[in-house]
Amino acid sequence: MEYRRVKDQESYDVVSQKDIESPGERSLSSTSATSSLSTAGASKGKNSWKLKSIVTLALTLLTSSQAILIVWSKRAGKYEYSVTTANFSVEALKCLLSLIALYRTWNSQGVTEDNRLSTSFDEVSVYPIPAILYMVKNLLQYYIFAYVDAPAYQILKNLNIISTGVLYRIILKKKLSEIQWAAFILLCAGCTTAQLNPSSDHVLQTPIQGWVMAIVMALLSGFAGVYTEAIIKKRPSRNINVQNFWLYIFGMLFNLVAICVQDFDAVMNKGFFHGYSFITVLMILNHALSGIAVSMVMKYADNIVKVYSTSVAMLLTAVVSVFLFGFHLSLAFFLGSTVVSVSVYLHSVGKPQPQK
Amino acid sequence: MEYRRVKDQESYDVVSQKDIESPGERSLSSTSATSSLSTAGASKGKNSWKLKSIVTLALTLLTSSQAILIVWSKRAGKYEYSVTTANFSVEALKCLLSLIALYRTWNSQGVTEDNRLSTSFDEVSVYPIPAILYMVKNLLQYYIFAYVDAPAYQILKNLNIISTGVLYRIILKKKLSEIQWAAFILLCAGCTTAQLNPSSDHVLQTPIQGWVMAIVMALLSGFAGVYTEAIIKKRPSRNINVQNFWLYIFGMLFNLVAICVQDFDAVMNKGFFHGYSFITVLMILNHALSGIAVSMVMKYADNIVKVYSTSVAMLLTAVVSVFLFGFHLSLAFFLGSTVVSVSVYLHSVGKPQPQK
Repeated sequence: MEYRRVKDQESYDVVSQKDIESPGERSLSSTSATSSLSTAGASKGKNSWKLKSIVTLALTLLTSSQAILIVWSKRAGKYEYSVTTANFSVEALKCLLSLIALYRTWNSQGVTEDNRLSTSFDEVSVYPIPAILYMVKNLLQYYIFAYVDAPAYQILKNLNIISTGVLYRIILKKKLSEIQWAAFILLCAGCTTAQLNPSSDHVLQTPIQGWVMAIVMALLSGFAGVYTEAIIKKRPSRNINVQNFWLYIFGMLFNLVAICVQDFDAVMNKGFFHGYSFITVLMILNHALSGIAVSMVMKYADNIVKVYSTSVAMLLTAVVSVFLFGFHLSLAFFLGSTVVSVSVYLHSVGKPQPQK
Repeated sequence: MEYRRVKDQESYDVVSQKDIESPGERSLSSTSATSSLSTAGASKGKNSWKLKSIVTLALTLLTSSQAILIVWSKRAGKYEYSVTTANFSVEALKCLLSLIALYRTWNSQGVTEDNRLSTSFDEVSVYPIPAILYMVKNLLQYYIFAYVDAPAYQILKNLNIISTGVLYRIILKKKLSEIQWAAFILLCAGCTTAQLNPSSDHVLQTPIQGWVMAIVMALLSGFAGVYTEAIIKKRPSRNINVQNFWLYIFGMLFNLVAICVQDFDAVMNKGFFHGYSFITVLMILNHALSGIAVSMVMKYADNIVKVYSTSVAMLLTAVVSVFLFGFHLSLAFFLGSTVVSVSVYLHSVGKPQPQK
């Protein structure tokens, strides 16, 4: 009971924090990940399954520790820093790590057609699109709270799962088997069940405007994810760090706009890094690494794996919070976790015959 | 919210009413069902699927109207009659309907080895076993409430779903595919989710004795159901009405014992039918017909179909109650219903290759 109450307050912050950060929710390889990445380019057939597992595990662990860090930072006191500068820092850090990884690749393999930074207008012209989609979604987020309260918004966010599945099918033209579709519906129902709390029923009183906005936001978010996958997969031999560099450049650009619009005065008067603590730095580092993991998952797996990974992370966070913060798990959480587990199982056994 | 509160009080009564009635939860053919039954014996191969669907639908509709009748009778006032005499009446009515159906069969087909009432000791000796199992379970029911409250008991009752599946596999040696097992776990989780209410979390505080008793009760109930199926299916050509007649004779016998133990004085002083109203008669009729439907499902389908049927009936009851009694459905109900629906779908697509 206590767990859910605190979690709801927290997860709203996770939402605002995470969603505004989303333009850069793609990746680059951190120094430690670089080597596996660059070798993977060479012998990718053999290592593909291994790589897929590693990036999925990394995303799951990073996403779950992300929520825990936010709870921890909240317990330590209120946010003193401006969220927009933190998001910009995340983008900048990812951009920097991309360049470091690229530099190492250039040193070991030399500059090739696939790993050189310079690009054509045709190639780069699609890169701002995900960032624009996330920006529109973040704008809508300010308006939806006129119709929906924060816990109800948490529930409605699970529509993302369905929209990602549908757009993945339509845009990337990849097939899911009937059992995998059933598993996807279960994933959505299971995640929502795990998040149920005594005030969840409010969501049923959501007015039609709220529903429309929630659905539009889910579509925008799903579209941005699927579009990013399409960009990254369009040229499989292209170095992921170059692709990320260009994605993050636009992420920085759009976050710069956000700083100017929202926090211009605060940054001018108090400075860019005002209120940053050790935990703020940890959170920025975690977000940057999570971004890397998301991008890796997009390159070596797909959006479906990403959705499963972040859903399992949500459950992991709750379980870890029991030990770290003494939260209590509800019966709904156990039931939702059971449904999510069965969904993961069904997704893996329900592969369509000529998979991928 | 209101729905769930009222439903919990009611469904506890459903429990006590239904469980004590259970020894006779098998069937005979009502006059209208008789013809389809007797013809089915002849051309059973062709009509098997049709018959299976009809009996399943009948069971679903009768079970859902059963709970509605109980809510209705409660609204009309408290039970004035003794539950044990009502249960005895249900058994007696089913016994009578069995005999009527048999009489019609004898007239049309003559007395054969398969439809004659007389039996060997070997054949009849197994018939009291389900009744004994239900009696032990009903005895346990009086003690479990020392450890578990009524809403928590409602939640724990869903263990029946799992125990039925496991015992069905072990005793009847029938195979479920992996996907069907997954579907069965989902059915249990979905039904429990649909019944969640703000006080459901109490169940997590159930002491170990409560868990043990709940599991033993689930096993007894599952065993009784599976054993009944084994008895009925042992001799497929045997007329179902003869099989039911002997089951119900023992049902009457054990209910007679229950009357003597619980309500002897009341029956002696006020009479057997004291407090019976029009709705009491309707309920007895409904219980008798539900018993018929369960028995038909055992003969022409199986325990798994029975569990699905009664689970869907539980959801139907809730939806119908919205219109009849102005109940409100919770978000948990929608989520649980979604999971149950997906489970039904998975059970049907997940058939093992050489099914049955």
